[in-house]
Amino acid sequence: MNSSNKTSPSHPRLSSDINHWDIDTDVAIIGFGGAGACAAIEAADAGAKVDLFELASASGGSTALSSAEIYMGGNGGTAVQQACGYSDDTENMLSYLRACFGNQADEAKLRSYCENSLNHYQWLTGLGVPFKMSELKERAIMALTDDCLLYTGNEKAYPFPEAAQPIPRGHNLEIEGDNGGPLLMKILTEAVADRGVNVHYESRALTLIIDDNQEVVGVVVRVDQEEINVRARRGVILCAGGFCMNEEMVRKYAPTFDCGLTPIGNPGDTGSGILMGQGVGAATVNMHECFVSLPYYPPSSLTYGILINDKGQRFINEDCYHGRVGYNTLLEQRNSKRIYLVTDVAGYGDYEKMSYLGAQVAGTGDTIEELEGELELPAGSLDYTLSSYNRHAAEGQDPSYHKSAEWLRPIEAPYVALDCTLGRGPFYPFFTLGGLDSLPTGEVLNTGGEVIAGLYAAGRTTAGIPRTASGYASGMSVGDATYFGRLAGQTAAKRDC
Amino acid sequence: MNSSNKTSPSHPRLSSDINHWDIDTDVAIIGFGGAGACAAIEAADAGAKVDLFELASASGGSTALSSAEIYMGGNGGTAVQQACGYSDDTENMLSYLRACFGNQADEAKLRSYCENSLNHYQWLTGLGVPFKMSELKERAIMALTDDCLLYTGNEKAYPFPEAAQPIPRGHNLEIEGDNGGPLLMKILTEAVADRGVNVHYESRALTLIIDDNQEVVGVVVRVDQEEINVRARRGVILCAGGFCMNEEMVRKYAPTFDCGLTPIGNPGDTGSGILMGQGVGAATVNMHECFVSLPYYPPSSLTYGILINDKGQRFINEDCYHGRVGYNTLLEQRNSKRIYLVTDVAGYGDYEKMSYLGAQVAGTGDTIEELEGELELPAGSLDYTLSSYNRHAAEGQDPSYHKSAEWLRPIEAPYVALDCTLGRGPFYPFFTLGGLDSLPTGEVLNTGGEVIAGLYAAGRTTAGIPRTASGYASGMSVGDATYFGRLAGQTAAKRDC
Repeated sequence: MNSSNKTSPSHPRLSSDINHWDIDTDVAIIGFGGAGACAAIEAADAGAKVDLFELASASGGSTALSSAEIYMGGNGGTAVQQACGYSDDTENMLSYLRACFGNQADEAKLRSYCENSLNHYQWLTGLGVPFKMSELKERAIMALTDDCLLYTGNEKAYPFPEAAQPIPRGHNLEIEGDNGGPLLMKILTEAVADRGVNVHYESRALTLIIDDNQEVVGVVVRVDQEEINVRARRGVILCAGGFCMNEEMVRKYAPTFDCGLTPIGNPGDTGSGILMGQGVGAATVNMHECFVSLPYYPPSSLTYGILINDKGQRFINEDCYHGRVGYNTLLEQRNSKRIYLVTDVAGYGDYEKMSYLGAQVAGTGDTIEELEGELELPAGSLDYTLSSYNRHAAEGQDPSYHKSAEWLRPIEAPYVALDCTLGRGPFYPFFTLGGLDSLPTGEVLNTGGEVIAGLYAAGRTTAGIPRTASGYASGMSVGDATYFGRLAGQTAAKRDC
Repeated sequence: MNSSNKTSPSHPRLSSDINHWDIDTDVAIIGFGGAGACAAIEAADAGAKVDLFELASASGGSTALSSAEIYMGGNGGTAVQQACGYSDDTENMLSYLRACFGNQADEAKLRSYCENSLNHYQWLTGLGVPFKMSELKERAIMALTDDCLLYTGNEKAYPFPEAAQPIPRGHNLEIEGDNGGPLLMKILTEAVADRGVNVHYESRALTLIIDDNQEVVGVVVRVDQEEINVRARRGVILCAGGFCMNEEMVRKYAPTFDCGLTPIGNPGDTGSGILMGQGVGAATVNMHECFVSLPYYPPSSLTYGILINDKGQRFINEDCYHGRVGYNTLLEQRNSKRIYLVTDVAGYGDYEKMSYLGAQVAGTGDTIEELEGELELPAGSLDYTLSSYNRHAAEGQDPSYHKSAEWLRPIEAPYVALDCTLGRGPFYPFFTLGGLDSLPTGEVLNTGGEVIAGLYAAGRTTAGIPRTASGYASGMSVGDATYFGRLAGQTAAKRDC
């Protein structure tokens, strides 16, 4: 909204100032991660001419860096769910997601996602994405085997079973090791190529182009150190990721998370898509929220332990998802100077071999008193907490925090405590969950809640299904990006122009 | 950013579409609360022709509804602080405010505010705002006597004394009862009138007017059911309050607070100033944060009690500010189904006579066990918490939460507990703390961080000094609105045009 001539996301270029269109296409897509790939496939399948611009020299985005678990279910269940003996109901899936995100949820997106999730599974398998008809029954962050189905969120953890019947919905690709992301992007990239999409690598989108009616009619891209003007007759789809790599934006919009966390994503997650959208009047929502995790498992045996704060109090059921624990330690326990995980030798188990948590041993003790002293907890506090926990655990009960009986057993001497305090060793990864305000169709809204003609977005450039780490489940972000990427591609391709 | 013809904040009017200017002025100010009044006074004093538009039929805004405590200090201290024996240091005040808001703070605004707070005090007294040279030494939310100086925040409460020397900075006007707001606005309104400002009541600002360079050159106002075009040669200052009365905006931008709280403010706090700013590309920040309070004192004797959650755990030092307690109960204790205040007969004191909390008695007991049963707490939990608290309180200690010795004494049978759970009776007021991104000068920034020519804002239309309820102190919002209102008026009046 400024007359400066420089090319920046906040200064859309006016089509009346453009003498020459370097590229003339139907749909221009910015970003070749999971969202952009799916948008390109659908737009091409709908008959549109598609040009896809990617900053890096290869496709992938943050999807390729992830495990590419995909959260799917509903409508009776995917073939994998059914093969593993689960019947999944759309309303049950919807109830679960509502419980995850409360009044932060986008009801229209949740409903679209749940109603069409089975179709999305079939679309992915139709492209050749392989899922084995098997379940990984361990508590894990991702499947390191080639097994598919996994509980990837809080489905079985209090209080979620009160809201919805627990069903596993995390679908891991059929490949050994943590290699789902590269495989998914390889398949999607081939599908894009098969459709004759014009892919431009090492091409940085700079700003949108608008006409006199404020409609988005193209995008300025820098290729080989030159700015080129791309005319997009049906629209531009922003799939440029989130903003966790943009320190200034994190500080400005998500200051709670500007505290020494480790951003996870690709270097292009600088919020450029969000900034370009804002530059043409788009609203942003949920900008203050991020995914954050305290990945205290594997080994899953640490789930038998208890998390305590600097008062020696427990504060959460330790069988919930690592993101929920990360959120809780970072936000709800923000006034606690220490976070410890207290366990015993059996619980500690293969920690040193299997974990990527990075937490150091903060103390050990043959007695509770000894450990309490080493951890500098208020006198008697750990004794009260641990004795009470053990007494109930022996009976398979956790009346205060409702950890499920599966993970309850008394913690026996000798004791060991890991220092899970942020800044004292442990890995606290984060990425952003806020972005452009958009409809399920991918249409981007202005601050008055109206559609901006010609502008679409998907993936972490938007605020999508996942709204908080507290309710997050692995697979929600790749699921959201791929599903709503498809819808954005469909919508843009069929726009009258 | 849309070609629709309707007049809404999201659709700025183009000056090229305007045939006739109904009013031609230097500075147009929207909103006649504390911020707008101070902006008008300064702009007029700088020689500008000023037109002030107010939705209501009288001045006042939310400032007139408040107690109009004003948070001031630094530079050795105000005359009142000095008369009461306090010497206040600018850096100490700055350290305190930094501790209050952490990395959510706007450092430039904090510095400007602290460095010029003494000057602001003198400016106010120069206008005739009366402050008595006296201190109210009670723990209170506002002075109901005509006394002036009061600790209105967390200055004396842990952990703030670790960051800054505690100094009272809440300045109450010299008037009996909770009547500071009306008196302040009466004085400011007279000062506006004395300066020949053209005041237009019952005048609703609809949208901004921009020229071809995207500069703000005026505002469309509805008066007597007609739209009039106001040309503002030096600029428009938005002082239209926050958005706590706009349910849709609260749900969209501050969903955490969309949970049955009671909005406090005037009916015009619908976010219209924020929406108009957004309509011309302004950035918004801190939109997810609100002031929220659990006003559990008066009577101050309840501070001798302890706040506990549904696990029977304490979670905060009960001598802190009511807003910090409100924030903590609402956010950090969000997973607790109950919040109780446990006290004894002496602590309960004049609760029924003095309080406006509205909390009901949840249980009583001649023994801890009896109360624990009535409150349905985990067996032994209250016994552990209260016994531990009492043992330390008898020694003037609170090793876990650091409540100051002043408020420590053992809680003696018979016991009583108030149900402070949101939704079960108690008053949880809230108002918004997010708004347009602006410089201390009042200049509004676009999403690229650049100044939008011709646009200014102050008060709760902006994100100002107070950024969270957790660090709030009474007097910060009126202090911020009046001080930065003045700066916006000065800046706009001297703009070259």
